[in-house]
Amino acid sequence: MVRWINPTLSRKGAGNLSFKRCLGEKRLQVDRFLQKYLESKGGVPETLYRAMEYSLFAGGKRLRPILLLSGCELCGGDPLQAMPLACAVEMIHTYSLIHDDLPAMDNDDFRRGKPTNHRVFGEGIAVLAGDGLLNSAFELMLGIRPLDGGRLEAVRVIAEAAGVSGMIGGQVLDLEYEGKEIQLEDLKKMHSKKTGELISGAILAGALAAGCSGNKLQSIRNFGQSLGLAFQIRDDILDVIGDREVLGKDTGSDSSGNKSTYVSLLGLEEAKAAVGRLAAEAKENLAGFGNRAGFLVWLTDYLVDREF
Amino acid sequence: MVRWINPTLSRKGAGNLSFKRCLGEKRLQVDRFLQKYLESKGGVPETLYRAMEYSLFAGGKRLRPILLLSGCELCGGDPLQAMPLACAVEMIHTYSLIHDDLPAMDNDDFRRGKPTNHRVFGEGIAVLAGDGLLNSAFELMLGIRPLDGGRLEAVRVIAEAAGVSGMIGGQVLDLEYEGKEIQLEDLKKMHSKKTGELISGAILAGALAAGCSGNKLQSIRNFGQSLGLAFQIRDDILDVIGDREVLGKDTGSDSSGNKSTYVSLLGLEEAKAAVGRLAAEAKENLAGFGNRAGFLVWLTDYLVDREF
Repeated sequence: MVRWINPTLSRKGAGNLSFKRCLGEKRLQVDRFLQKYLESKGGVPETLYRAMEYSLFAGGKRLRPILLLSGCELCGGDPLQAMPLACAVEMIHTYSLIHDDLPAMDNDDFRRGKPTNHRVFGEGIAVLAGDGLLNSAFELMLGIRPLDGGRLEAVRVIAEAAGVSGMIGGQVLDLEYEGKEIQLEDLKKMHSKKTGELISGAILAGALAAGCSGNKLQSIRNFGQSLGLAFQIRDDILDVIGDREVLGKDTGSDSSGNKSTYVSLLGLEEAKAAVGRLAAEAKENLAGFGNRAGFLVWLTDYLVDREF
Repeated sequence: MVRWINPTLSRKGAGNLSFKRCLGEKRLQVDRFLQKYLESKGGVPETLYRAMEYSLFAGGKRLRPILLLSGCELCGGDPLQAMPLACAVEMIHTYSLIHDDLPAMDNDDFRRGKPTNHRVFGEGIAVLAGDGLLNSAFELMLGIRPLDGGRLEAVRVIAEAAGVSGMIGGQVLDLEYEGKEIQLEDLKKMHSKKTGELISGAILAGALAAGCSGNKLQSIRNFGQSLGLAFQIRDDILDVIGDREVLGKDTGSDSSGNKSTYVSLLGLEEAKAAVGRLAAEAKENLAGFGNRAGFLVWLTDYLVDREF
C-alpha cells in the first residue's frame, strides 16, 4: 500500500490537494481488494454473485473503510493488514442498504441515481444478496491470520456495532418511529445505533488493529462518536436542503410529513451549528496524535463542509 | 453438562430409551443456553428482541446443534465447550427460516403450525430479526475464549457452510429453480448447498472443536455428507406422503405443480431405498469410533426412520 504524504497543516493548500488525492487512492485500494475478494469466492450461483457485485460497486464513497484504515494509520499500524477489516465493514454497510431499500422497509427504487437491488434482481434475490454480503463480511474477517490480539478485538467491535444493539437495532427503531413525531433524545438514540455505531466502530477497529490502547484508544472512541453524530446531523441537513431545492419546502417540515429530523427538532441554523461544534470536538480528540492526524483532521472537515 | 449413558448397541431396547432421553436432555440444554444468550444482549429494541425470540423458540427440533454437540463428544471433546458453536448454528438455521418464509421467497404464513415471523411482526421486522440472528450468531462465536485452534477452525467451517457457496447459495438456486423441471444433478446441488452444508458443517465443526483431525475427521466429513443427503431425500418423501394424505395426490406429482423433487425424479420406492443406503453409508463411517458412536448411530436411524 502506498504511504501517503502527510503534509503539515500550515501548508493547507498543498495539504488539501494531497489529502484529496490520498482519499482517491484509498478508495481505489478498497475497491481493488473488494473486487479480488469477491472474485475469490467459488461455488457462488451466478445471480447471487451479480447481485452482490451490483450493490457493492454501485458508487459507494467507501467512507467507513477509509475511516478504519485511517484509524489504523493514526496509531502507527499498517493499513494493508487492516484491509480485510475495512472491506468487511463496507460489505456490512452495503448489505444494510440493500435491506433498507426493500419494499417492506424504506421502499426505495433508486439509490445514488441507480435502481436499487430489488428493482434489478427481485426482492428474493435482494434479501439473499444482503444476507450473502453480511455472511461474507464475517468470512472475510475470520480469514485474517493470525486472528488474535487487537485484530480479534477489532472484529468483535465491528460485529457488535453491526448487531442488534447497534445498526440493526437502529433500523428497527427507524421503522418504529416512522410517521411519528419523536423527541430529540429518541432521534439521537436511533441515529446513534443505526449510523453512528458502525462509523465509530470502524475507526475504533482500525485503532485496535494497530495495537492501540489506553488513553489514545479513548480519544479515538470520542473522535468516532463526535464524528458519527456530526455525520448524521449533516445528512439530515442535506436531505432538508435537497427537499427545499427540489420541492420548495419550508424549514422545519419534511417531505414525508411529520418525520422528525434534527432540522425539524433544532431548526436549520442550530443544526448547522451543532455540526460545527461536533466537528471541532472530534478534531480536539486528535490533538495528541501530532502530524499523523493530518488526514483525519482534513477528512473530518471534508465530511461536514461539503455541499453546504 | 450431564454426560449421558452410552449403552452398547446389543441392548438396543434399553439403548433406545436412553438415547431418546439424551436427545430430550440435549434439547433442553440447547434451549437453556439460547435463552440465556438472548437475555444477555443489552440495548436491543423490544420489538426486535421479541421477534428474534419468537422464531428461536417456535418449536425447532435443535437437530443441528445436537449434531454438533454429538460430533464433539464422538471425538472425545467436552460438549459444554462447544455449546456456543452449537447455538450459533441454530441461530443461523432459524434466521434462514425467517427469510425463507418471506412473501418474496416461499411466502409461507405458517411454520410448524404457528404464524410465520412476518405474519406476526410485519415484513420489515422479520427481515431485521433474521439479520439480527445471523449477526448475533457470529457475535456468539466470536465471544469464544480462547478463539484458536480447532474452535476457530470450527467457526470458519460454520461461516462457510452458511454462506454464499453454501446455504445462501442453495436458497438462491431454489428460487431460480421454482416452477421448473430440473435434472437430478441440479436438485442434488441445490439441496446440498441449501440444507446439506449446514448439517454436515455442524457435525464437522463439533469434531474440530474437539481437536479431531486426519482420518477420523475425514470419516466424520463423509458421515455428515451422507446423513445430510439422506435427510434431504427423507424430507422430500415426507412432503409427498403428506400431500398424498391431505390432497390425494398421485406418486410423482407435487402439489405446487412441476416442482422437481427426489420423489418425482426417482420415484417413491427408489427414493426410500436411497435413504436406506445413505443411512447405512453414514453409519459405516462411524465404525472406527467404537461405543462413543452409539448416540449418533441411533440418531441417524431416528432421523431417517420416523414417520415412514
